[in-house]
Amino acid sequence: MRYFADEIPGGGPLPKPQSASIAEGHRPRVVIVGAGFGGLNAAMNLRQADVDVTVIDRRNYHLFQPLLYQVATAGLSPAQVATPIRRILSRQANATVLMERVEGIDTKAQTVETSNRRIHYDYLVIATGARHAYFGNDAWADAAPGLKTIADATEIRARILSAFERAEVAEDEKIRGALLTFVIVGGGPTGVELAGAIAELARKVIVRDFRRIDSSSARVLLIEAGERVLPTMPPCLSEKAKRQLEGLGVEVLLRTPVTQCDEAGVGLADGSAIESACVLWAAGVMASKAAKWLGVPADRAGRAMVDEKLNPPGHETIFVIGDTAAAVGEDGKQVPGVAPAAKQMGQYAAGAILARIANRPVEPFRYRNFGNLATIGRKAAVADFGRVRLSGFPAWLVWGLAHLWFLVGFRNRVAVFLDWAFAYLRYDRSARLITDRHDR
Amino acid sequence: MRYFADEIPGGGPLPKPQSASIAEGHRPRVVIVGAGFGGLNAAMNLRQADVDVTVIDRRNYHLFQPLLYQVATAGLSPAQVATPIRRILSRQANATVLMERVEGIDTKAQTVETSNRRIHYDYLVIATGARHAYFGNDAWADAAPGLKTIADATEIRARILSAFERAEVAEDEKIRGALLTFVIVGGGPTGVELAGAIAELARKVIVRDFRRIDSSSARVLLIEAGERVLPTMPPCLSEKAKRQLEGLGVEVLLRTPVTQCDEAGVGLADGSAIESACVLWAAGVMASKAAKWLGVPADRAGRAMVDEKLNPPGHETIFVIGDTAAAVGEDGKQVPGVAPAAKQMGQYAAGAILARIANRPVEPFRYRNFGNLATIGRKAAVADFGRVRLSGFPAWLVWGLAHLWFLVGFRNRVAVFLDWAFAYLRYDRSARLITDRHDR
Repeated sequence: MRYFADEIPGGGPLPKPQSASIAEGHRPRVVIVGAGFGGLNAAMNLRQADVDVTVIDRRNYHLFQPLLYQVATAGLSPAQVATPIRRILSRQANATVLMERVEGIDTKAQTVETSNRRIHYDYLVIATGARHAYFGNDAWADAAPGLKTIADATEIRARILSAFERAEVAEDEKIRGALLTFVIVGGGPTGVELAGAIAELARKVIVRDFRRIDSSSARVLLIEAGERVLPTMPPCLSEKAKRQLEGLGVEVLLRTPVTQCDEAGVGLADGSAIESACVLWAAGVMASKAAKWLGVPADRAGRAMVDEKLNPPGHETIFVIGDTAAAVGEDGKQVPGVAPAAKQMGQYAAGAILARIANRPVEPFRYRNFGNLATIGRKAAVADFGRVRLSGFPAWLVWGLAHLWFLVGFRNRVAVFLDWAFAYLRYDRSARLITDRHDR
Repeated sequence: MRYFADEIPGGGPLPKPQSASIAEGHRPRVVIVGAGFGGLNAAMNLRQADVDVTVIDRRNYHLFQPLLYQVATAGLSPAQVATPIRRILSRQANATVLMERVEGIDTKAQTVETSNRRIHYDYLVIATGARHAYFGNDAWADAAPGLKTIADATEIRARILSAFERAEVAEDEKIRGALLTFVIVGGGPTGVELAGAIAELARKVIVRDFRRIDSSSARVLLIEAGERVLPTMPPCLSEKAKRQLEGLGVEVLLRTPVTQCDEAGVGLADGSAIESACVLWAAGVMASKAAKWLGVPADRAGRAMVDEKLNPPGHETIFVIGDTAAAVGEDGKQVPGVAPAAKQMGQYAAGAILARIANRPVEPFRYRNFGNLATIGRKAAVADFGRVRLSGFPAWLVWGLAHLWFLVGFRNRVAVFLDWAFAYLRYDRSARLITDRHDR
């Protein structure tokens, strides 16, 4: 007998919907797929409501993605940026959490299909997020991992740290050079954060630890195809971010499309090549399969097209939110794929569902932009609050306080604060472990 | 070009010894293989000496193994029980750290062979530890993982937490029962710690988190073939430990050999079977391959036979220490495989090497037993200091203080203290992540 994979025989039909056995009663059932910022906020905003909430996620944890780059660069441990979904919802009596992988949606039968069962919904919130994408170059994935999950982050951490370890023992000058060259493809927030954090790691954190190499001689290149880094920021802040990166020792290459990625490094559009043992991908994302599950139109990044009430066309009981949705704000601009937007959409979906249940009219979704922050390194960041624009230390302070504040759970806040305080005082990083998934 | 695996072609001869390029000069070279308690203490005790120290480990971290069970049961994060070897030795100017896998030793040429190079030694310290062992039943390894490495601990953590997740969605009563049955094979310190921690997890930590199962109804069985748990303790403390375990809800089965282990659970000598989706192995260890590398005799557990100076027969420049050595104390008893013994052997080896270099006589190794501690759970432990024997809360307090004290690095001490303080006050665990090595 196997308890994990084959509880329900693979060949037969799926079992009947088992809603009754999961939560008895006749209250409307709201099923939320995905417990990121959007899904979790939808669930939490239904706390007081007379509905049954079922949250389905294939992982057991909610991830504080804005700090994931710190896990990838050995500043924080995975448990410091991730919290068990069950724990967050443990006191919400109307919420049930199921750790399952969703494989499809039957909008006629109003069921969500997981690998093991069908679950009936009256209202459905899809908040399944996005993955990084290679836009037709999926073969690059092994050579240039992206950063979306804890597993991605620990893999990137192992690659970065292993490159220094290998350089320390390398006898060949050319190989050592490639091992000490770090290439980050993509100049958005993730690319900027990774580049800054790797430069600080090499120049400050581990600089005493090696005997044969000088880790501070490592090259860190941030390669961006467009005109500037942080393209969603005002141009003056992009310029400031570039200068702060250069101050940390990062080489910023603009207007430089990458045409090849493999284990030797990257190839550029002008025919030149950069030899690197550690290439990281931060150049684009692709939404989850929600649009396919629903059979609704999607934009180029795979996001499901939704109306001003976040419903895909023809589905008033289904809300698509967060990075999975191609939503347009009142200003006619695309709602950005950031955590505050996902949270607002989750809160909105909860309110809209309650309005529908009560037969009240549903107001359109309004995105409120409270500002735009990107961090670069110790004391380095940029912040755009419309009229007020900050950079350097003031921006970094705002960034640090905002992220501490929004970290889920007091516990994590204290632990992260202590880790940052130590790192700040001592230029140290706590999580410098190379753990290999193949190494038992 | 690949930078990680194939720097040196696999088919050709190994390159020449490259000692000169790794550390110039004519000082005696001490090579230490393994950076556990023994190897690290040997290196640190050579800090002031006029020698070149090379520490080789296939991992980049020193592991505080006595707390590893807390990682396996979601109480601590990996980075809280592991510290980069480089960081520990970063201020020791005569020490070089190489992250490589040792594959053999040529005692005639006085070289250590790694996958990439040969390294010359004048003195060699082998401190490569032990792995858990299935004693002829290697097929049990997949069904019943043991606990020696960080990867083991995160694998066990995922199995324990996944069992609860699966039980929450299981429709079949029998399958749910097997998912809520945890079997630990082996009643030594690791088995006792795991059983106590799993019982506390099920009964205290996660008890509010589920809707369909009662996690506190989980069965935790500790199965021991011998007469009592903690066989190296005095019998009265074994009895106290058993009663404390039972107080936490652990079923302790003594004189119960396990005859079968597979994905359905375990089979017992009396022909009965226990269905369990989570079987953990704590029933025995096997030393590393050091005896084979050296071509010297080993005992049944694979430990290299050494004389009273910790030298294998005929090798005065080689010291085998820690769990790799079958060393006999002055009292004629085997030196136990515990961290304090390994540390003492490391310190001894450093002193003996310096004595040999100075042509001073080498005193035999004396093991000083400062006491024997085993923890069971919150406020539950046993401690044997010869005449003074403690159990319950006083023993737990001594255990907690001792382990905090010996954790390498002030940083980790603060973080672990905070995690314990929180866990004590709130019955909470920070590291409840199911991360899957196959899940990108």
